[in-house]
Amino acid sequence: MTSRLTTSSVLPLITSRATCLRRAHSQSRFTLPPTIRQILSSSRVDEPVTVNAWVKSIRKQKRIAFGVLSDGSSAAGLQAVFPNEQLGEHVKEITNGTAVRVRGTIVESPGAGQDRELRVEDVEILGACDAETYPIQKKFLSPEYLRDNTHFRARTDGIAAMLRLRGALQRGIAAYFENQDFTSTHTPILTTGDAEGGGEAFRLAPLEAEATSADKTRTEADREFFSRPAYLTVSHQLHLEALCHSMSRVYNLGPCFRAESGVTRRHLAEFWMLEAEWNVLPVADPRDQTGALCDFVEGLVKGVVGDGGIVHSEDVDLLWRHHERDAAEHAQQRAALVQCVTTEKPWTRMTYTDAIRELLRADRQWTFPVQWGLSLQSEHEKWLCETLVGGPLFVTDYPADIKAFYMKANPALVGEYGPTVGCFDLLMPHVGELAGGSVREDHIERLRASMASKGMSLDGERYGWYGQLRQYGGSPHVGFGMGFERLVSWISGVENVRECIPMPRWSGRMIL
Amino acid sequence: MTSRLTTSSVLPLITSRATCLRRAHSQSRFTLPPTIRQILSSSRVDEPVTVNAWVKSIRKQKRIAFGVLSDGSSAAGLQAVFPNEQLGEHVKEITNGTAVRVRGTIVESPGAGQDRELRVEDVEILGACDAETYPIQKKFLSPEYLRDNTHFRARTDGIAAMLRLRGALQRGIAAYFENQDFTSTHTPILTTGDAEGGGEAFRLAPLEAEATSADKTRTEADREFFSRPAYLTVSHQLHLEALCHSMSRVYNLGPCFRAESGVTRRHLAEFWMLEAEWNVLPVADPRDQTGALCDFVEGLVKGVVGDGGIVHSEDVDLLWRHHERDAAEHAQQRAALVQCVTTEKPWTRMTYTDAIRELLRADRQWTFPVQWGLSLQSEHEKWLCETLVGGPLFVTDYPADIKAFYMKANPALVGEYGPTVGCFDLLMPHVGELAGGSVREDHIERLRASMASKGMSLDGERYGWYGQLRQYGGSPHVGFGMGFERLVSWISGVENVRECIPMPRWSGRMIL
Repeated sequence: MTSRLTTSSVLPLITSRATCLRRAHSQSRFTLPPTIRQILSSSRVDEPVTVNAWVKSIRKQKRIAFGVLSDGSSAAGLQAVFPNEQLGEHVKEITNGTAVRVRGTIVESPGAGQDRELRVEDVEILGACDAETYPIQKKFLSPEYLRDNTHFRARTDGIAAMLRLRGALQRGIAAYFENQDFTSTHTPILTTGDAEGGGEAFRLAPLEAEATSADKTRTEADREFFSRPAYLTVSHQLHLEALCHSMSRVYNLGPCFRAESGVTRRHLAEFWMLEAEWNVLPVADPRDQTGALCDFVEGLVKGVVGDGGIVHSEDVDLLWRHHERDAAEHAQQRAALVQCVTTEKPWTRMTYTDAIRELLRADRQWTFPVQWGLSLQSEHEKWLCETLVGGPLFVTDYPADIKAFYMKANPALVGEYGPTVGCFDLLMPHVGELAGGSVREDHIERLRASMASKGMSLDGERYGWYGQLRQYGGSPHVGFGMGFERLVSWISGVENVRECIPMPRWSGRMIL
Repeated sequence: MTSRLTTSSVLPLITSRATCLRRAHSQSRFTLPPTIRQILSSSRVDEPVTVNAWVKSIRKQKRIAFGVLSDGSSAAGLQAVFPNEQLGEHVKEITNGTAVRVRGTIVESPGAGQDRELRVEDVEILGACDAETYPIQKKFLSPEYLRDNTHFRARTDGIAAMLRLRGALQRGIAAYFENQDFTSTHTPILTTGDAEGGGEAFRLAPLEAEATSADKTRTEADREFFSRPAYLTVSHQLHLEALCHSMSRVYNLGPCFRAESGVTRRHLAEFWMLEAEWNVLPVADPRDQTGALCDFVEGLVKGVVGDGGIVHSEDVDLLWRHHERDAAEHAQQRAALVQCVTTEKPWTRMTYTDAIRELLRADRQWTFPVQWGLSLQSEHEKWLCETLVGGPLFVTDYPADIKAFYMKANPALVGEYGPTVGCFDLLMPHVGELAGGSVREDHIERLRASMASKGMSLDGERYGWYGQLRQYGGSPHVGFGMGFERLVSWISGVENVRECIPMPRWSGRMIL
């Protein structure tokens, strides 16, 4: 029933709220007319419909015109057949990009490519579109050109599909966490932390002098809105850890900010990150916790993308078709993606120590040195997951010295060259690091020592609260962060994360 | 089955990924042990369970001890009976706030207040908690004290219930919009807009001098990370309007920022806002669109809070019980809330012009003047919705001069004193303005005139793109914004929005 609400049934209700509400109640309060997606997925033929849409293309013949209409609701457009005589003057006005209201009947389509089409009975021009100057011309438009026209770029099939994919991923992720009793939280964007002064955190400007007292005795703090410097968060982890110490299982899909001046296809200055922290039952060896953490992350990705059907969705299909790369390579990449999110087989896991051994054995000339204790560089990660493994790869148990202070120390293991921590990086072909996480150090003295070794202090205002979490009912917990745009990039094959977010921001560039 | 996964069944799987994944597949990839909520809602008696939790309270008797355990998953705690002899030394160590892992059996409870309890067979102290210095003592803790201890305040029942309520609202809102084919988007946090220079927008600090070239010729732009000043968004509306011109129906639950130095119980410097924009079928009179827009917003709130059952949830019950106000008044407020979200009867709607008439007729001494063309003040809004109407109230069709430039002009109406626009403010008892929205001006020349009358220009970089939306396939559309913390406040009866967000920020105050 819901998709049958058309203009004729909705408009009269506007002046009769009581009727409208009663109807809304019995129809899950559905009050808007059907979208093209709903029309295509559920209307029977001979159904009258009214819809607002943009003309994606129009082909005018002598007696009729064929148009494709889109309202952004689905990858497939609605084929519309306009009888010229009925349209009169309108036919001339209708060009690509024109916003129209069309009323007509859904009929079976005699043409190839679609089951149904709309036989237009009435059309109204809502917004004309000058064919000469319209920014979204029907020709190849480069990603860079579309970034310059960010307010219109969702009129292209690719960006619209990306936006729907983001929405589908949000729903899938929320459902997955909800099934496991996680609480979705909103940890703060403005924080007191400057990411250890690495210069990566954006800082708020102090208040203008005129907005504060002219008194010479005013301090720096007086010029700060919050009486102290405020930074845009680079990660929600520490705040999530605080909530995890009350709520047990928390997650957050929130914005993060990094003032990195390096410009790559994998980095944005403003990006979204999925982060979660949860309590775990104690185990003797943190390596077992790391394994269980990898299980969870793998289960999440497979559950949402594979079981959830996103990998087979029309939007993902459309995005893969959009590529200009070699067709065979494209087909192979797509097949590998589908395979890895639908297989029962676990993804490969390898310790950092084993990864170093493989890299040394590879008999290749590396640009960056390969040595236990040094970070893995992109060339190493790429080779490990694309060449050696040929699929997703968890690299675990990195040296403590090259990882963050909050990661839990592993007990020493024969064959390793120094202390390691219980952590993972998840590497994906063509995307690189998709996620990273760790067992968190919950022992206050070991945490203090770890921080001291990195020149940090657990005492004092900056991290005092973080220490207190361990002092008053501390509990073993783990967590991870996953770049949302990188997830979109990996699933869709869209190589640059700037095409994986509605309105991208990076060094030197911010439009709108 | 899912809730029966206990330690004994989960731990062995950690070293056997293949088994774990197979099991996870057949159980919707459920890999974590059951929470207290899951135990209480689905376990049968004589069920063995293992759970991590914090001790909320413990009462030690000669041979046994009664404890209440919480893991943050539900308003109800788990009553646990510890036989002292078995616990030995542990009993002394267990105090409020201690983190424990307990293993035991769910049995029918002989005591009042719960159906089931846990007969503890084994307990492990995960994190001790010094009873003397623990910040969350078992006594009255003022909101202000808890704000100072924001990293621990979710250990209190009220804050934990608020966090779960936020999660439930997110889920309900997402489901409501999804049913109507809206796309959930992430519009940018960093924007070029400074909210018309009103000083309300936070600005990013320019880069430090040392981070930029020492060259004397460097310009202001060189010192900006984005080559131009960047502000934290005060509203996502304009960006949502851009996406709406491709996707037809978009919404966003995202953070907004206002550098307001006024400190009230209804304002935060960082808050979350639900905003939506969608295309509508054209109608002759914007007043009809405004009515349909009110229908939608009312349907949303009733659908999520009423039909969705949130208003009757344990967490909302708990939060209303928390109040210290007069019991009769509290009961009456709660009943009115339930009534208004479950009734079929539409909420009262009144034009601004009628509201002014009512205020003038009220025969009351107003602190602020009541006159057509002046804004309604808190005292007026409070009287209108709490005294005159006694429930939610849409005030519609405000004078154009006191509303934003993007609102659509109404045709002149007899009895009004000047031009009005198609818009609404939704006023709620005890909360004030919960939401506001309007029909958007989609006619480029009327938009230009409206901006000119407010000293703004549609030409130029600042709003040029916004004008283009109307020039290339513009379409009638409407939208609204709703303060998420105010929604939480209204539903829960929690009066200060600082207790409606995990970690509040306001003028002069930012902790963590």
